[in-house]
Amino acid sequence: MVNLTIALDAMGGDNGPPVTIPAAIEALAANKSLKFLVFGDQYQINPFIQNTPKSVLDRLEIIHCTQSVSMDEKPSLALRQKPESSMRLALEAVKNGEAQACVSAGNTGALITIAYYVLKMLPGISRPALVTAMPSLSGHKTYLLDLGANVDVDELTLHQFALMGSVLAEAKGTPNHTKPRVGLLNVGEEEIKGSSKIKRAAKLINDDDEINYVGYVEGNDIFTERADVVVCDGYVGNVSLKACEGIAKLVVESIKEAVGKSWVSKLLAFLALPTLKKMYKRVNPDQYNGASLLGLRGIVIKSHGNASKDGFKYAIVEAVNEIEHKVPEAIGHRIAALNERS
Amino acid sequence: MVNLTIALDAMGGDNGPPVTIPAAIEALAANKSLKFLVFGDQYQINPFIQNTPKSVLDRLEIIHCTQSVSMDEKPSLALRQKPESSMRLALEAVKNGEAQACVSAGNTGALITIAYYVLKMLPGISRPALVTAMPSLSGHKTYLLDLGANVDVDELTLHQFALMGSVLAEAKGTPNHTKPRVGLLNVGEEEIKGSSKIKRAAKLINDDDEINYVGYVEGNDIFTERADVVVCDGYVGNVSLKACEGIAKLVVESIKEAVGKSWVSKLLAFLALPTLKKMYKRVNPDQYNGASLLGLRGIVIKSHGNASKDGFKYAIVEAVNEIEHKVPEAIGHRIAALNERS
Repeated sequence: MVNLTIALDAMGGDNGPPVTIPAAIEALAANKSLKFLVFGDQYQINPFIQNTPKSVLDRLEIIHCTQSVSMDEKPSLALRQKPESSMRLALEAVKNGEAQACVSAGNTGALITIAYYVLKMLPGISRPALVTAMPSLSGHKTYLLDLGANVDVDELTLHQFALMGSVLAEAKGTPNHTKPRVGLLNVGEEEIKGSSKIKRAAKLINDDDEINYVGYVEGNDIFTERADVVVCDGYVGNVSLKACEGIAKLVVESIKEAVGKSWVSKLLAFLALPTLKKMYKRVNPDQYNGASLLGLRGIVIKSHGNASKDGFKYAIVEAVNEIEHKVPEAIGHRIAALNERS
Repeated sequence: MVNLTIALDAMGGDNGPPVTIPAAIEALAANKSLKFLVFGDQYQINPFIQNTPKSVLDRLEIIHCTQSVSMDEKPSLALRQKPESSMRLALEAVKNGEAQACVSAGNTGALITIAYYVLKMLPGISRPALVTAMPSLSGHKTYLLDLGANVDVDELTLHQFALMGSVLAEAKGTPNHTKPRVGLLNVGEEEIKGSSKIKRAAKLINDDDEINYVGYVEGNDIFTERADVVVCDGYVGNVSLKACEGIAKLVVESIKEAVGKSWVSKLLAFLALPTLKKMYKRVNPDQYNGASLLGLRGIVIKSHGNASKDGFKYAIVEAVNEIEHKVPEAIGHRIAALNERS
């Protein structure tokens, strides 16, 4: 029985329908409870739904859109000049209650701006935060937020990030821990370190009994198991994420270069490169697909722009997960309770 | 002929004399112009200078110190309670003109605090900045500052970082570029992005004709060749550096794990691990040894705490380089000229 309806922005991402539609069809085949409202250009979508079984096609409703937001479009212009874009209409479907979540691989800035405008924020939250899970060797996930949606934040916003990240990590499940452990990103673990804003945020988060605060964590702890949620402002989060992408690429290129210099090396390279590539994908935060926009009155999942079919499917699974765990409602309750306490 | 005198804190770092003294002896053997004032515990140093040729030993003057600063000591306590520490006395040798630079592998916070107290800042500069070169595949170096000495900075400080980084990169030499290209770390390259503080800093740096400003750069550009100098506050610099250490470690561990699962894999691992380790050292920013403290009235080089003998020698070479290029004087002139202009 269909009880999960997701609005898909079929046109978003570097690839659009050739990736989003096959991913949607596979997701529908795998989950009989799922239905998609697919927003996009009917003529670009049609070639990818040929030969699809009726049992699947019945749960894939296409809503033809005449506009789409490009990857390098200025968010404010996308908002003003494209009221009929696939992204905008997918978000409006969530707003109108026709869908329970929106998934898009489109322009991040435009998605944040339009989601903010269409869906509005939960009471007491000022701006959406972008969060994603970072990898660790054991498979443990660390939720890092904010990843760039907010560059000017105060200690109250960092406190909200801690609460929202905690709700998300709890919804996703943190084995062995009843309550997600929340760390605040800082230059050192000692209490005396950090800017005055960070110290004020630490006090707020520490004083909140609803949060299992574990203190300051450092940059390298994003990839360890010290915390389930790591809180920082969008400037630090974005720069760190991209710096990690940069060094992960450098490591892989270095290895490729080093192993490519003799015939033994070439043999090694031939044998080892698939492994290295797989490892690269595993550790490249870019590939941890399906970042959530938190704090909105609705679920919005941002798939990476160059996500593969499997990557986009993973973003859909994230959306299903957040629907089932009623993440926005849970965040709304926690923030309302926080505001009552303070 | 001796014309370079460097004060060494022999006790600093995780290892102390077993690393610092052999490194010093090799540096003296390689450079006949060099002399060391070695500050530390005579009894711990003695075993490492046995069998050293007189021509080298003549240029290694040991000043016995009864105190040393430990790696986890609180900087303010080290300053107040250890007036006779090897670190303190090495810095005072620079202050008194007995040495032209100080090299220490000791506690970073203590080194910054004591250097600030003993050497004082150049006129017009409020706090020292910590800078180091980041690797890229081609061997290009990107100087990143600040790495954690300053967590609360305004746009004026970021402008000073841009000037100081530019002077250092120019002294070290930027092939193919007459003037070091300076980028400001931000969440995106577009002019409209970033916090208000970053935007104000961008205007100041862009308006300064002495700086070859190339605009905003992103986290991944720390490891590309887009800029010779990348400017950010100490919070972002420190977190990014440590996040990169974290992911570099994760990549190497992932590869080790992946290649260790079958006999073919084990053979691969046996053949490839030395290469991987070398690559890891190459890309691990930790191993780019010899961070400079800029803005002081004297040259202070911070070697990594767990530097090997070769790492510590590299830090000594950095010190020689900065003496020869008169880095503090060059920074002093540039900052004075800036203050005259504004």
